[in-house]
Amino acid sequence: MAEKKAKKIEIFDSTLRDGAQGEGISFSVQDKLNIVRALDELGVAYIEAGNPGSNPKDLDFFAEAKKLRLSHAELVAFGSTRRKDLSAAEDANVRSLVSAETKTVAIFGKTWDFHVKEILRATLEENLAMISDTVAYLVSQGKRVVYDAEHFFDGYRANPEYALATLRAAADGGAATLALCDTNGGTMPEEIRAGTETVVREFGVSVGIHCHNDAGLAVANSLLAVSGGALQVQGTLLGFGERTGNANLSTIIADLETKAGMRCLPDGHLALLTQIARRVAEIANIAVDSGMPYVGGNAFAHKAGMHIDAVTKNPRAYEHVTPESVGNERTFLMSEVAGRSLIIEKLRKFDPSLTKDSPLAAQVVARVKELEHEGYQFEGAEGSFELLVRKNLGKYKPFFDLHYYKVIGEQKVDGAMETAFAQIKIGVEGDMAVTAGEGDGPVHALDVALRKALERFYPAVRAIRLTDFKVRVLDSKSATAAKVRVLIESTDGEASWTTVGVSADLIEASWIALVDSFEFKLISDVEKRFRAYL
Amino acid sequence: MAEKKAKKIEIFDSTLRDGAQGEGISFSVQDKLNIVRALDELGVAYIEAGNPGSNPKDLDFFAEAKKLRLSHAELVAFGSTRRKDLSAAEDANVRSLVSAETKTVAIFGKTWDFHVKEILRATLEENLAMISDTVAYLVSQGKRVVYDAEHFFDGYRANPEYALATLRAAADGGAATLALCDTNGGTMPEEIRAGTETVVREFGVSVGIHCHNDAGLAVANSLLAVSGGALQVQGTLLGFGERTGNANLSTIIADLETKAGMRCLPDGHLALLTQIARRVAEIANIAVDSGMPYVGGNAFAHKAGMHIDAVTKNPRAYEHVTPESVGNERTFLMSEVAGRSLIIEKLRKFDPSLTKDSPLAAQVVARVKELEHEGYQFEGAEGSFELLVRKNLGKYKPFFDLHYYKVIGEQKVDGAMETAFAQIKIGVEGDMAVTAGEGDGPVHALDVALRKALERFYPAVRAIRLTDFKVRVLDSKSATAAKVRVLIESTDGEASWTTVGVSADLIEASWIALVDSFEFKLISDVEKRFRAYL
Repeated sequence: MAEKKAKKIEIFDSTLRDGAQGEGISFSVQDKLNIVRALDELGVAYIEAGNPGSNPKDLDFFAEAKKLRLSHAELVAFGSTRRKDLSAAEDANVRSLVSAETKTVAIFGKTWDFHVKEILRATLEENLAMISDTVAYLVSQGKRVVYDAEHFFDGYRANPEYALATLRAAADGGAATLALCDTNGGTMPEEIRAGTETVVREFGVSVGIHCHNDAGLAVANSLLAVSGGALQVQGTLLGFGERTGNANLSTIIADLETKAGMRCLPDGHLALLTQIARRVAEIANIAVDSGMPYVGGNAFAHKAGMHIDAVTKNPRAYEHVTPESVGNERTFLMSEVAGRSLIIEKLRKFDPSLTKDSPLAAQVVARVKELEHEGYQFEGAEGSFELLVRKNLGKYKPFFDLHYYKVIGEQKVDGAMETAFAQIKIGVEGDMAVTAGEGDGPVHALDVALRKALERFYPAVRAIRLTDFKVRVLDSKSATAAKVRVLIESTDGEASWTTVGVSADLIEASWIALVDSFEFKLISDVEKRFRAYL
Repeated sequence: MAEKKAKKIEIFDSTLRDGAQGEGISFSVQDKLNIVRALDELGVAYIEAGNPGSNPKDLDFFAEAKKLRLSHAELVAFGSTRRKDLSAAEDANVRSLVSAETKTVAIFGKTWDFHVKEILRATLEENLAMISDTVAYLVSQGKRVVYDAEHFFDGYRANPEYALATLRAAADGGAATLALCDTNGGTMPEEIRAGTETVVREFGVSVGIHCHNDAGLAVANSLLAVSGGALQVQGTLLGFGERTGNANLSTIIADLETKAGMRCLPDGHLALLTQIARRVAEIANIAVDSGMPYVGGNAFAHKAGMHIDAVTKNPRAYEHVTPESVGNERTFLMSEVAGRSLIIEKLRKFDPSLTKDSPLAAQVVARVKELEHEGYQFEGAEGSFELLVRKNLGKYKPFFDLHYYKVIGEQKVDGAMETAFAQIKIGVEGDMAVTAGEGDGPVHALDVALRKALERFYPAVRAIRLTDFKVRVLDSKSATAAKVRVLIESTDGEASWTTVGVSADLIEASWIALVDSFEFKLISDVEKRFRAYL
């Protein structure tokens, strides 16, 4: 007989369709192709990639997407049931689904009698015919049809007979999957489970679940539908979507694989989860929420001192799965409470004899608190933190003295490429350098000028590239006079490090972070090259 | 007999204790007092406000907090079971709980045999004695004790007899509430429900639930525990907390009140939810996630064109509750797909005869797309959007011409207050103004100079205050040469409006948003005063 195998759940990602309804999200054709590649690499079963009928860009996309060679995923075109007054074959939107040339298409139809009457303005009978006709037409064109029962749970609550009749119409038309949608996102977990169980029992086809997060329950509702017999889970990898978003597939995949013993991805692919989630976020130009389960920057970040102590003994003490299982990593955050022991740990790198009670440790802790009060955050700015420790330990000497910097910004003169100019004078052991730089904005100009000045003395700065630049306004209410915190991430091609600066003047804050970045690199080089002599 | 009443659930907020373990969160004593006031106004039952034993700042806080007159909430001090080698009365941490002078205290103890042995390094019997002794001592000091069974669900899975024995020790000591903690956040909903039901059945005291969101399930798990008989829900108003955060109480309160017919807050207080959530976020200096259920800026934001059409007919079509019920509001976002109909709607404000097919509408849509491509976002920048529409309709004339601006930034000279200087020359109908401004940073200096110049011609600009200033780096990877989007929120004391500017130069982006802000105000004034003549 068959071997015992983990139950397989089909992951149906709609980042490119429902996800595009999220605030601030707008994908170019190229973005969409890149996201398809990423999702295919992760190994989802279906990628719902757009609505060729409503959006001409989506039509272009499907033409381009045909050229992709996908290893795991299948593309799906999305549309709706035919118009009330046309046959399916006459309806241009339905026909565009055929011309997208995907093997599978998803269409949604109305389940809730209120929606049929008040929004669609059709009779209940007309709606049933629209569903079965459209599915049957698409099946006749050789398509596998996923039927999305919009508002299934609201409809089932309001008029269960009619809701089931709409599913029957889809099943009679030949739908391969009946996906139950909690479109408004307000259904409670136990109702989702019971509704799914009923449909699984009554219909002989595969059942899917499509949840929204308006009540904060999209992940749990998807899991309970799976407990109730659903075999397909629809959502978006990072929870992008209309209003509060769709069900977050990165969380659901990890929950099902690590907790429920089910299989959603090809063998070994779960460890790609964090990396692919971050890549998709980057393409969408949205930061992954640091608190996102499994894939967020803080998913395995420990801050309470007691937690850090325990995790150091055994990570299982405060981690429900290993960070490695989902490709993430453990971090320790600094805080007033945890701070001291973490700071001591860092200090020991320089002087292993230091203990909690050494005056030096107290001095560094006090300095960190003072800077935090000014708006600094050393969480995630390890480069600046190491410099701070060095300065307090006396293991630091400035690489240069600043005599002045001056930055001039002007409105763009027609034809000019640059809008800002910087001049800087630095000294290195009595030798002076005066340089100037132009740039897109004052910080860029300053970066260019400082780099030129330092290169004369320290050729290694040529290897430094700034890879990220973030600005956080600390007290937005003071408007243009508010303090800002600038975080700069740099790399030399091998290591990467982050530094921080705070000031009411954005240029000064950037300057502080920039100087830290260059000094961090120079110190690291000295350590590498001269440690033997020290 | 008793009237039929909605079941009452105790809301136990730990924003000030467990919430302070969230990344980037650090509360001053004043912040804590302000949050207590906000939570009391909302009407939660308990506010767990800190650990007087581990944190001296918390001790100060409790001394100050005694002076507050609270209307609905009760403060709770938090600590742990006594040390293995001391009696409860000898343990300074336990004694500090008494000296915090709250009627109720919460203490946590170990439930999971693995934690007892490997982290606490005590015997299973020692741990039971530590629990019952500590609870009994606190009860003898007149305290009502909430006992937090740390890792209850992990412990119950690993060694159910021992897990229940720890609860028995707490109950025997006199604990009023047994709170079951899913400390690592990895337990599945059905297991939470079953575990809670068992404890409710076995023990004659009130049961609480304390969930973490590591598997994206904290809200659902809390609701299922309530279904299983829990009467107290612990969490943090906005989900702040270690790693992925604690259970989000704003979501749970709204779910229980609007979906489950239970009562968490005093009558009528649910409508304060959004306002209080945003106030707490502001005190914590963290923006409320726009996708947060019920209270987020997008919780009732519609973007898909079809959704907007339907919601315009009947909001119930795509809203699970009314935004007013939780004090939030409905918004419509602009997007490629929805865009056209929204833009038409705005255009009709100026010319009611315009239709979807007018060339002017197409022209504005094309211009919006072009600007979006450059990095503009008109979602949430209604002021700039209205100016854009006016410019395309010919209903706009510049209020001034810019001849030049020039900004100089320098590193702070010792003793100087300001680091930036701006000079500006503008003309109004042939009359020129040349002004200068100093400020904290170049944008502030420019703001000051422009304001001075405009005041001469338009005294109304004196009423404008900038209330918010946000910077978003659009393409962080280009580092200091990246494009930035600046959003400025302004008010004249009556209305408020937001404007946007984009450029690779932060100063230029700010300038664009600043000019839009001033012009928006001036146009609104003209409309008010002269509409009759136009």
